[in-house]
Amino acid sequence: MPITLLRRERRFYELFDRQAGNVVAASRLLRTAFDDRIEAMPAHQAAIKDLEHAGDELTHEIIQTLHRTFITPFEREDIYALSSGLDDVLDYIDEIAETIILYGITDISAAAKSMAGLIVEAAVQIQGAVSKLESKSGVSEHGIEVHRIENVGDTESRRAIGELFRGGYDAVAIIKLKDFYTLLEDSLDRCEDVANVIEGIIIKNA
Amino acid sequence: MPITLLRRERRFYELFDRQAGNVVAASRLLRTAFDDRIEAMPAHQAAIKDLEHAGDELTHEIIQTLHRTFITPFEREDIYALSSGLDDVLDYIDEIAETIILYGITDISAAAKSMAGLIVEAAVQIQGAVSKLESKSGVSEHGIEVHRIENVGDTESRRAIGELFRGGYDAVAIIKLKDFYTLLEDSLDRCEDVANVIEGIIIKNA
Amino acid sequence: MPITLLRRERRFYELFDRQAGNVVAASRLLRTAFDDRIEAMPAHQAAIKDLEHAGDELTHEIIQTLHRTFITPFEREDIYALSSGLDDVLDYIDEIAETIILYGITDISAAAKSMAGLIVEAAVQIQGAVSKLESKSGVSEHGIEVHRIENVGDTESRRAIGELFRGGYDAVAIIKLKDFYTLLEDSLDRCEDVANVIEGIIIKNA
Repeated sequence: MPITLLRRERRFYELFDRQAGNVVAASRLLRTAFDDRIEAMPAHQAAIKDLEHAGDELTHEIIQTLHRTFITPFEREDIYALSSGLDDVLDYIDEIAETIILYGITDISAAAKSMAGLIVEAAVQIQGAVSKLESKSGVSEHGIEVHRIENVGDTESRRAIGELFRGGYDAVAIIKLKDFYTLLEDSLDRCEDVANVIEGIIIKNA
Repeated sequence: MPITLLRRERRFYELFDRQAGNVVAASRLLRTAFDDRIEAMPAHQAAIKDLEHAGDELTHEIIQTLHRTFITPFEREDIYALSSGLDDVLDYIDEIAETIILYGITDISAAAKSMAGLIVEAAVQIQGAVSKLESKSGVSEHGIEVHRIENVGDTESRRAIGELFRGGYDAVAIIKLKDFYTLLEDSLDRCEDVANVIEGIIIKNA
Repeated sequence: MPITLLRRERRFYELFDRQAGNVVAASRLLRTAFDDRIEAMPAHQAAIKDLEHAGDELTHEIIQTLHRTFITPFEREDIYALSSGLDDVLDYIDEIAETIILYGITDISAAAKSMAGLIVEAAVQIQGAVSKLESKSGVSEHGIEVHRIENVGDTESRRAIGELFRGGYDAVAIIKLKDFYTLLEDSLDRCEDVANVIEGIIIKNA
């Protein structure tokens, strides 16, 4: 393959690596914020928002590179899907932080902390899968892990939501916290979507 | 076509037929559970969960077969989409049963029973479409039926949810039952997604 | 290209233009209804429902044309996705109007009016993009606008929902209005989905 084509290809891998790095960083900020005082949440949210903006710019750069590149390392629509998928995870992490402030949630439960920890784990697995996209070897293991993590999160969020109905919460609190847990679980679903896109790329290029 | 290739192709149709059978069986268990005493729900849910696990294994087998097969009866990504789609329907049916227990819903309304009946109907139509994937003839009729059933379910769930706001329900009951009806309707949406994947396969291979 | 093929191609563009016109018309009816007395809502909803039915027929005609046509102006699955996407926007606009009646919402807030205005804006941008699909020039600008409008709507709906938790609303009102604002925002998401499908078509045919 001519050097310039190779460089173009590598450019996509580089951009995806950076975006996966943003996702991991944002998930870690969220997890840290969940252990901090609730008054510090706006500051944490601002830091997450910065990463989300950086992610928007990277997404834009990936799409621009796609427009300028004739031969791509895998199908154009998959580059698009992977890029949107990673961007979605960032958006959800940002939305979680924003929702806490917007809904006036003042107490981060142990269940929520655990789910935020799962988002970090899933993000790290996605980063692992993305870093192996070029060699195409060992990618599936990360996908399997993401599915496992999402399953754990599903159980945890359902248990936490069920708990809300066992008494001790008024209707408004139930509305708020049910949305909050659902959002945490939805973020893991978005991680799973990314894992599915990557799985699809591997299947098509097997 | 050489015998071995033909056998490989047939394998996919067999696996999809079995998965569609699981979906029909799970939907029937749910419909039956809705007529039983509420105390029996955990036992019914356990039976549905077994089918859901069997479905997970079948999904895994389909993906494994996909990895080992070079020439597939239709596009690789459509095999993947159909397989995930059927799995999603199973997951939703399981989630409905689980939600009843988790939310402590004690009364299954006539509207919920009717919607569970629609899920059985849609599952049977999906099974019909899947069974005709190989011959590719008469598939569309099943798709049209799934869309019709989903439309009926949409109207029923919206009416049932509207009813919740006409008085007689406290806020917590509204939260629970709105989620429950939405989940029933979402299951029909997942059936429609499967019908759309099948419709796409037929369109591409017309 | 032979005249008949050209005519077939043009047929798709014509049908999509008409469907985009339906989306714009429905969005305008909704915006107008939001300024009218609440008692007039059923009449407005009936008019929107008529457009939604017309949209169903157009969708059917597009799919039928697809079945009869061997060479299509862009990939078969994208014709299918664009057609479903436009249909979804119509369905959502109809659902917004229906929900107001069903939930017994009696007061349309300034925030809801503003969001309905955004749906009109997004629909007009989609119409612009669809009208340029044949020439494939100047399409992206409309997509960028749809993304911008969806972002504004996202902020507005989140602010409106946050407002519900600042007091003055009982739990049932919160449930109703949170659904209502979410539905308005979801409609903008469906507009963004259409913009993404169009963006995908442009990327693949660049």
